[in-house]
Amino acid sequence: MASQREISNLNKAQILVTALPYIQKYAGKTIVIKYGGNAMVSDELKDAVMTDIVLLSLVGINVVLVHGGGPEINEMLHKIGKESKFINGLRYTDAETMDIVQMVLAGKVNKSLVQLLCNHGGKAIGLCGLDGCLITAMKQGGKEDLGYVGSISEVNVKIVNDVMKDGYIPVISTVANGEDGEVYNINADIAASRIASELGAEKLILMTDIAGLLRDKDDESTLIPVVQVSQVISLKRDGIISGGMIPKIDCCVEAVRRGVNRAHIIDGRIPHSILIEILSDEGIGTMFL
Amino acid sequence: MASQREISNLNKAQILVTALPYIQKYAGKTIVIKYGGNAMVSDELKDAVMTDIVLLSLVGINVVLVHGGGPEINEMLHKIGKESKFINGLRYTDAETMDIVQMVLAGKVNKSLVQLLCNHGGKAIGLCGLDGCLITAMKQGGKEDLGYVGSISEVNVKIVNDVMKDGYIPVISTVANGEDGEVYNINADIAASRIASELGAEKLILMTDIAGLLRDKDDESTLIPVVQVSQVISLKRDGIISGGMIPKIDCCVEAVRRGVNRAHIIDGRIPHSILIEILSDEGIGTMFL
Amino acid sequence: MASQREISNLNKAQILVTALPYIQKYAGKTIVIKYGGNAMVSDELKDAVMTDIVLLSLVGINVVLVHGGGPEINEMLHKIGKESKFINGLRYTDAETMDIVQMVLAGKVNKSLVQLLCNHGGKAIGLCGLDGCLITAMKQGGKEDLGYVGSISEVNVKIVNDVMKDGYIPVISTVANGEDGEVYNINADIAASRIASELGAEKLILMTDIAGLLRDKDDESTLIPVVQVSQVISLKRDGIISGGMIPKIDCCVEAVRRGVNRAHIIDGRIPHSILIEILSDEGIGTMFL
Amino acid sequence: MASQREISNLNKAQILVTALPYIQKYAGKTIVIKYGGNAMVSDELKDAVMTDIVLLSLVGINVVLVHGGGPEINEMLHKIGKESKFINGLRYTDAETMDIVQMVLAGKVNKSLVQLLCNHGGKAIGLCGLDGCLITAMKQGGKEDLGYVGSISEVNVKIVNDVMKDGYIPVISTVANGEDGEVYNINADIAASRIASELGAEKLILMTDIAGLLRDKDDESTLIPVVQVSQVISLKRDGIISGGMIPKIDCCVEAVRRGVNRAHIIDGRIPHSILIEILSDEGIGTMFL
Amino acid sequence: MASQREISNLNKAQILVTALPYIQKYAGKTIVIKYGGNAMVSDELKDAVMTDIVLLSLVGINVVLVHGGGPEINEMLHKIGKESKFINGLRYTDAETMDIVQMVLAGKVNKSLVQLLCNHGGKAIGLCGLDGCLITAMKQGGKEDLGYVGSISEVNVKIVNDVMKDGYIPVISTVANGEDGEVYNINADIAASRIASELGAEKLILMTDIAGLLRDKDDESTLIPVVQVSQVISLKRDGIISGGMIPKIDCCVEAVRRGVNRAHIIDGRIPHSILIEILSDEGIGTMFL
Amino acid sequence: MASQREISNLNKAQILVTALPYIQKYAGKTIVIKYGGNAMVSDELKDAVMTDIVLLSLVGINVVLVHGGGPEINEMLHKIGKESKFINGLRYTDAETMDIVQMVLAGKVNKSLVQLLCNHGGKAIGLCGLDGCLITAMKQGGKEDLGYVGSISEVNVKIVNDVMKDGYIPVISTVANGEDGEVYNINADIAASRIASELGAEKLILMTDIAGLLRDKDDESTLIPVVQVSQVISLKRDGIISGGMIPKIDCCVEAVRRGVNRAHIIDGRIPHSILIEILSDEGIGTMFL
Repeated sequence: MASQREISNLNKAQILVTALPYIQKYAGKTIVIKYGGNAMVSDELKDAVMTDIVLLSLVGINVVLVHGGGPEINEMLHKIGKESKFINGLRYTDAETMDIVQMVLAGKVNKSLVQLLCNHGGKAIGLCGLDGCLITAMKQGGKEDLGYVGSISEVNVKIVNDVMKDGYIPVISTVANGEDGEVYNINADIAASRIASELGAEKLILMTDIAGLLRDKDDESTLIPVVQVSQVISLKRDGIISGGMIPKIDCCVEAVRRGVNRAHIIDGRIPHSILIEILSDEGIGTMFL
Repeated sequence: MASQREISNLNKAQILVTALPYIQKYAGKTIVIKYGGNAMVSDELKDAVMTDIVLLSLVGINVVLVHGGGPEINEMLHKIGKESKFINGLRYTDAETMDIVQMVLAGKVNKSLVQLLCNHGGKAIGLCGLDGCLITAMKQGGKEDLGYVGSISEVNVKIVNDVMKDGYIPVISTVANGEDGEVYNINADIAASRIASELGAEKLILMTDIAGLLRDKDDESTLIPVVQVSQVISLKRDGIISGGMIPKIDCCVEAVRRGVNRAHIIDGRIPHSILIEILSDEGIGTMFL
Repeated sequence: MASQREISNLNKAQILVTALPYIQKYAGKTIVIKYGGNAMVSDELKDAVMTDIVLLSLVGINVVLVHGGGPEINEMLHKIGKESKFINGLRYTDAETMDIVQMVLAGKVNKSLVQLLCNHGGKAIGLCGLDGCLITAMKQGGKEDLGYVGSISEVNVKIVNDVMKDGYIPVISTVANGEDGEVYNINADIAASRIASELGAEKLILMTDIAGLLRDKDDESTLIPVVQVSQVISLKRDGIISGGMIPKIDCCVEAVRRGVNRAHIIDGRIPHSILIEILSDEGIGTMFL
Repeated sequence: MASQREISNLNKAQILVTALPYIQKYAGKTIVIKYGGNAMVSDELKDAVMTDIVLLSLVGINVVLVHGGGPEINEMLHKIGKESKFINGLRYTDAETMDIVQMVLAGKVNKSLVQLLCNHGGKAIGLCGLDGCLITAMKQGGKEDLGYVGSISEVNVKIVNDVMKDGYIPVISTVANGEDGEVYNINADIAASRIASELGAEKLILMTDIAGLLRDKDDESTLIPVVQVSQVISLKRDGIISGGMIPKIDCCVEAVRRGVNRAHIIDGRIPHSILIEILSDEGIGTMFL
Repeated sequence: MASQREISNLNKAQILVTALPYIQKYAGKTIVIKYGGNAMVSDELKDAVMTDIVLLSLVGINVVLVHGGGPEINEMLHKIGKESKFINGLRYTDAETMDIVQMVLAGKVNKSLVQLLCNHGGKAIGLCGLDGCLITAMKQGGKEDLGYVGSISEVNVKIVNDVMKDGYIPVISTVANGEDGEVYNINADIAASRIASELGAEKLILMTDIAGLLRDKDDESTLIPVVQVSQVISLKRDGIISGGMIPKIDCCVEAVRRGVNRAHIIDGRIPHSILIEILSDEGIGTMFL
Repeated sequence: MASQREISNLNKAQILVTALPYIQKYAGKTIVIKYGGNAMVSDELKDAVMTDIVLLSLVGINVVLVHGGGPEINEMLHKIGKESKFINGLRYTDAETMDIVQMVLAGKVNKSLVQLLCNHGGKAIGLCGLDGCLITAMKQGGKEDLGYVGSISEVNVKIVNDVMKDGYIPVISTVANGEDGEVYNINADIAASRIASELGAEKLILMTDIAGLLRDKDDESTLIPVVQVSQVISLKRDGIISGGMIPKIDCCVEAVRRGVNRAHIIDGRIPHSILIEILSDEGIGTMFL
């Protein structure tokens, strides 16, 4: 592989030029990125993601960043000596935990991303589901009581559109205003999918720590680059979509069904995976349409 | 005193009518409120403050809410078993403490106020000094190293104006983006004063747990209702302004000097003190001009 | 009853606060008030009405004032020694009378209200049906020739919307441009009802000198607070709606049928009846929906 | 002279074409016309004036019509049997007279002009000095008490600009809001001059019943077509400007001094004198610059 | 016939006044004029056309000028010694000829008209089918290969609307961007017709060198002033529409069918024929509706 | 040197990322490019220039293209058998030549560039100095009469700003409207320099067929990358700036003196030289500041 030094000015210009049709295609469109996994842990990857987002924003693409924050929440719970109670493998979120979740997501992870974008030359604003009544939730149903885990009852994207119109990159934590006045924690993939569809986004991109949907989960060379949402049912039946992939792919399917043009599961471990996905003719990961 | 039941419809209408000239006077103007003390602790007072703010906002007055959060920070530090180091009575803010400060202020206190305003029918947005590069800070100078305690180097109120233009009530936590890329904690009174002057605000209101500036600090009947900023120097010399009042009054003086029309120290322990101050002819506390 | 002096600041603030949900409800909506009767005769009541309108306008409610002026017209006719000819109890409006009507309504009553609103801090503009071709009329049909009494053939509210958009309170005299180029006098209740429906108003309020629709017209305690427009037919059959109430209630019914949300007959003899009706939970008079 | 029938299409087109440079010159500019005298009495002249104004308005010139109404006032005073008291030849305006003046000007003359413009295809709005606090006045000083005769203390043309921006032709009666809350009658020439200067008008045109300023007042062939305002003093000294011409010419001088580009005294007895003055190279009457 | 000198000021004003209803009727509407024939050859006629267009534009009518340029093209071809090849009477347009056509139309005729309009006080902009992708074409089908003669595949009038919104008079040469990347020559009548319908124009005017559609082509007194498009078929059958008139009238019919209100064939040899047609009650030529 | 195939996705992304600060720097700014020389002859270079311009335009940089067209003019003159007369080495432009110049520049070169930009996905509009009265000229003075060679008397960039605001890339031929009504040819370098300064452009870029200003004109390794305009006088004295470089560098100096931030002479023979200059940290050619 060539080192960057060896790349001529002409080559550099030609590479910029190959991005042209993609910029033309996506200018003025909205792309919702669910940010999480390794790309949020490694400082280097984080830096690359921030750079990508600022660049996309500069060339006229509206980027909305929805983030999670599991590791930071765990770390904080650990610090206060809180032991988590698990029910069928799902963490029970009591009031104290919910407090920590809100603080860590909306106060730490969110605002630190805003700061990072700012320091990369971007103009960002940190929102959560409480701001401008963005996300309203109710207690999630089901057999087991999981405490303050919510399911979305309404998404009102007016505040997101308002701040985008003023040129800000919205960074969103997915804690929500309960219909009962409490705060609920919302799964970030699901929230990103709903926000994307309410915004009429062009794309939903879920950043993960896998290469994409693999026919053989142990062999990255079996990556399935494109999936029609109508094929998902048989891919599940055949066990190709299984385990932790199921909820993520359901979010993609849901987004496409609600009008998002394309949904992607991309490999967040690759530096600049967002830029490569959006501005080059080489897709990364699996695209749902 | 009359109970509300005994007040006739006519009296009620007349009371609304007495608010008329004040609404006329302040419509379209901006009022920055530094929210803190008991008014932020008692649920009843909190409720009254939120109602006041939503009402002022509805009648066309732009309200900006700047808040502190000392008690919540202490509680959280206590929870993680962090012992505070004090230097000449001032808390040393190490990196871990700063992290807690950011989380508690921007994630908990701030967003909970936003939720409360939303639940009172307001349209609020929770910002901190990192959003839209609102506050830039540098390490505070002085003999003693206080860690991540910052002094303001720049306030860029564009984001505040942008969200007010779209009809949102900005709620602001005073953590700031350091010129060195770190996060700094900023004194909320000082930040409120600077934000007020950058916004060209009509009023700065500091909510406190005292009746105002008293000639005899043990006798509320000696309240000084109006102070010219030029009198402050002699009031300090005479010891009438002393102790904890000094920095608060300095913020008022600074705001007035930088063009804010009036600055007030009001008694946050009185329910609806904001409404009484702004919409009636009976001032509360001490006004600086 | 408590005198206003005895009402505490807290009570005053609480009264302001109870107006909050009504301001939220009506902000940006349009309310058409037909002004007449005692409320237009007594200087004190007049003052209260003007104050109410300026206050509503300030809190963001669009008020349109439509007025009559019978007593002033009579006084002027008397002054010029004009004897009125009556046909079946209805005044015959000859050309000279029409001239007086136009002068008194559009020149005296209308502009004096504008002046009064101006002197209460409002921004008003005096219009009649001729301005911007607001009301076009034709000679009223029927057995008897009543001269220049017109019935509305078209209402074009563009001028009303234009001046409201610029922040003016429209005050409207109901003389109209005849399709034949003459000027016609239009019943002010009917004109108010039509203007309300063309504006898509939230409310039509007819100010009268009665308490509202009474089951027993001699007993104010039999007030019917709410009437469904579908009940009007049986209330007429039962003689509860009778006499002079019929045309007023027909205006209310017509307005509701054409899309106005609520129509009210309120007691103009009560000071601040408009404010009490709109900004408190105690309705006054009878509401049609 | 040729009859219109004999004028060829080509000639007609050429005449339209000669108006071109004048339309270019005045498009977007404001012209204030003081309307009065014979041009307001004869129906034919009236019709011609209305047509001229609608035409000017259509080609993009902002016309403001300020009118008097002496004859109509006299007629009404006569009708109510009011005998006028004169002081040194000036009519004393008592409260009752002022009432009549307001009614006749703002209710009859004004609104009838609005109707006429409307019937010629124009979009007009009838204002007086009370609307939008357009003219504020105080009692006119001087040795003799003339009652409710006012002198202008402030002209606030915001309402005139607002309605012109929405495409309406403002028609203005010059009754004013007294600083003392009374209504005052204002000389229409003076009001027109002040309104013209406050609007930054291009032209002030006073329609009169004379040919213009004549060197020999009995010989129209001695018309002075152009007068520099600096020449007025010597023209007065020489007795060429004398009698009733003095106040009219003072209004012209005052307008020019306050920034109006040109002021004209034109002969309102000539049909279409406004159009001839503005859209042709043949001036009519006397121009002050 | 009267000479212009003999026409009185009054007559002149009356002529302006007769234009009033037409200005009212067409203000804000769009009129597409296909300019060609003698009116483009004679300097005097050219001048009259430019004056007419600037005048119409000033009174608020949007004029779009589409032009041909046969004589200038012939002259240039002659200059370079190019001999034209004709196929069934139609000129074969080879690449070199197309180059000349583009240069002459878009570079000479077009920009000279722009200059002329500018020198008459207009604000014009010279466009061709290539600007803003205004006209896309494909090679014209048919038995014979005519080279770079195109038929319209798409008209995108966004650029025309954009420049009109900014107050410019668009002057359009009808060379088009081929789907194959070549440049094609488009018949100007056809292009004008399509542009008129895409703009939703009020009128399409084709300037020709004939009096209009004549019942007897040798007798101008047999002019047919108005034709319903439904009559065209029988007029063709009867041989009244024949020869060179057929394509012109087809353009008119097509425009009317696609929503243009009126299409006209007018006699460009008459000075100011456009003004006479649009601003007077005497039509010129034949109108299709 | 690496072939593009060998460049990894990561490298490609990193190259895009290095353009980020430049896009941030120039977004919303205006860059005037004088296009000419080899870059306008070779189809490949032409293609690269068009791509560069469309890309810059897409990332929010306002590009204005000013072009010459010497070779095409010569070719056309040759075609019509016109022999050029030279005076002291300068071509005498008679009326016929001027006609050819206008046709070739405004009709052929200009509109073909517009078409090319359109076919690369850009939105361009072809203007010349006649459109919207962009450039007014007078006959160039000097000892020798050069015919229709003009010097600029006024540049009115309103039309350029208008079309840029609507998102079009202005492509400009430098033929101008003479004060005498004739058309004049203007040197394109000079026109570009004046247009840049009137637009308040960030940069003026002159594309040439040389590497830049060389200390030794036969050795490209002696390129002077940066020149202060204050050094130009001594560089001329030392003979480093000489011959054909003098007028080009004078244009750069003039632009900088009139407020353009930077002026560049770049090597148009290098593909994508514009992109390399603007979006990378490796300048090309000589920059004047």
